[in-house]
Amino acid sequence: MTDIRAMIANPEKDADIYWRTGFLAPDPLIYVETGNSGTLIVSDLELGRARETARVDSVVAMAPYREKLRESLIGVPTLADILHAYLQDAGAAEAPLTMPGATPARLVDRLRALGHPVALGDSPFWAERRHKTAWEIEQMAEAMRQTERVLDMARSMIRGASVRDGVLYTDGEMLTSERVRGFIQIELLKAGYAGAPPIVSCGDQATLPHEHGHGPLRTGETIILDVFPLSQQTRYGADTTRTVVHGVPSAEVVKMHRAVADAVTAVLTHMKAGVDGRDLHQRVLDIFESRGFRTETVDGKPQGFIHGTGHGLGLDIHETPRISKESQILEEGDVVTVEPGLYYPGIGGVRIEDVAVVTAGGYRNLCSLNWDL
Amino acid sequence: MTDIRAMIANPEKDADIYWRTGFLAPDPLIYVETGNSGTLIVSDLELGRARETARVDSVVAMAPYREKLRESLIGVPTLADILHAYLQDAGAAEAPLTMPGATPARLVDRLRALGHPVALGDSPFWAERRHKTAWEIEQMAEAMRQTERVLDMARSMIRGASVRDGVLYTDGEMLTSERVRGFIQIELLKAGYAGAPPIVSCGDQATLPHEHGHGPLRTGETIILDVFPLSQQTRYGADTTRTVVHGVPSAEVVKMHRAVADAVTAVLTHMKAGVDGRDLHQRVLDIFESRGFRTETVDGKPQGFIHGTGHGLGLDIHETPRISKESQILEEGDVVTVEPGLYYPGIGGVRIEDVAVVTAGGYRNLCSLNWDL
Repeated sequence: MTDIRAMIANPEKDADIYWRTGFLAPDPLIYVETGNSGTLIVSDLELGRARETARVDSVVAMAPYREKLRESLIGVPTLADILHAYLQDAGAAEAPLTMPGATPARLVDRLRALGHPVALGDSPFWAERRHKTAWEIEQMAEAMRQTERVLDMARSMIRGASVRDGVLYTDGEMLTSERVRGFIQIELLKAGYAGAPPIVSCGDQATLPHEHGHGPLRTGETIILDVFPLSQQTRYGADTTRTVVHGVPSAEVVKMHRAVADAVTAVLTHMKAGVDGRDLHQRVLDIFESRGFRTETVDGKPQGFIHGTGHGLGLDIHETPRISKESQILEEGDVVTVEPGLYYPGIGGVRIEDVAVVTAGGYRNLCSLNWDL
Repeated sequence: MTDIRAMIANPEKDADIYWRTGFLAPDPLIYVETGNSGTLIVSDLELGRARETARVDSVVAMAPYREKLRESLIGVPTLADILHAYLQDAGAAEAPLTMPGATPARLVDRLRALGHPVALGDSPFWAERRHKTAWEIEQMAEAMRQTERVLDMARSMIRGASVRDGVLYTDGEMLTSERVRGFIQIELLKAGYAGAPPIVSCGDQATLPHEHGHGPLRTGETIILDVFPLSQQTRYGADTTRTVVHGVPSAEVVKMHRAVADAVTAVLTHMKAGVDGRDLHQRVLDIFESRGFRTETVDGKPQGFIHGTGHGLGLDIHETPRISKESQILEEGDVVTVEPGLYYPGIGGVRIEDVAVVTAGGYRNLCSLNWDL
């Protein structure tokens, strides 16, 4: 018996099963791969669509297994029971399985109880998923182009705003995080991109890197725009961040912005296949330390450079590899964000984020939007 | 030692941890509950935001545990290692844990290897999550109002279209699934609702219940509009479906539509706490059979009524309970869809979907939009 790889996952929430099968659905499905042959096991509801669109060798109906199990089991059969019944029919009743480490423990426990030794694989489950093809890179490059176009429109809206009592106004209305976020989402949707709402955070809100932002935008304060949509058609993502100040930024913010920009440049300059992400992350820390920007906890609040330098990007906005304190070697075809940032309550937050493809000799930057403050 | 309940999950993908903590983040977090006290363990990146917004008794930084483990472990510490280190500090080094059945098997295996017996809980992990509070029902009622408003606008757009060569046109442009879908998404976004793209499927596409739809909409054919957004603010969802025909529907489609409408009415009439969902599902099948609409597989293609009658709705679009072939007793406070449908290749697809709150004596319908074809 050759090695059997099996997945039970919801393709709308799990990029591994979507990547392998090309089939999207809002409920968990079963995918089994033996040697070079892949089979998708789906409910009657999905059977027609799966046969038409899934990139698999065969599509099998779940219903007959469900019916048979309903007669023999007490209680409702789980997808683990159905997978086991399918393997029994295929003469692999107690075959060892390799499944993703992210598989629900309840299903793995059940498969083990039914006699299958289950080994758990890494994330991503399909190692090839990490290395992007030319086609995948083109999808992400196009997603980045659209994202930068809309981000630039939002930045212009902020820069062109008028001021009343320190608060920004355009077209006679107060300019809030919510309003800029809505503008970005609608413009991206028109281009076919959706996904999680972008970050538009101002002042002290911008010192909390994942704060979405709310309320009025103010002149003279840092405003972080972090936009990370997914294509509704291909599901590939973009991710880019710029920081902007309406009016006159403080000298401290200008210094922070220069340090962050220099950190992005340093990471990109040293990026190539074979480099350890930890070394790139250390370069960022060194630049910040040398400019006097310390990363430390003050009054219980972490400040300075309080996150990793970057993460993989693809069908997931956060995926392998990470560029962080942990050692991880970059490989050719990785698509990664480079997004150092500095956050000081009372002063503001500055982050710049580009996306690069790692190549044998360096990188290709998928971003072309200027970093201007 | 009282029972310890623990979760390791990404709140943007897992409604259980979001429901319990009220904290949203795009990466996995740890939540531990002993007796009545709940603790969230987060990265430095999320510390400030978690302290400000999470509905938990305490927020603990992950970083010190990560540092300590980095010195003692070979390799990168997983969130299971960090949870174990936290429990060790709390004097619960080998304490039994109860975790959601959906927890990644890799983490459960690791916790067991570290000495914790791990029992796996049901879905939802917090049984109370199933029974919606008045506040939750109001969020969903508002989401339904906005969804119905936009769905009705889309329906009017289709009904008011002109025809050229059988294809619909408005404002001089061809009316496609994509165009109507974009219109619905943008209108919902303006009201603060996002989520998965709606289904706008025409003709034979409408006979595949989860087909999103693509290409021109045609006169005389069934068009299914199934819209299921999530609030960007509260994360609660709506879900409603109407079927519309531009021009004159065939006699067969009119008959299907009447049968589906009567099935919705029959389910609602018999709905109340204590009723078995299987019995409601059987009523739908009986009505369809009595009108001559058979559910069967023809040429390998399932047709007729090929999905369940309904599903729970809340922070997830699909959650407990299901109204289907499987026995499941409805309880007071369940919010469920009622969405029978009929699908016949060559004729078309018809589905009507309302959402109801199950009460002791009956139901409250959160929908008010007419079912007109």
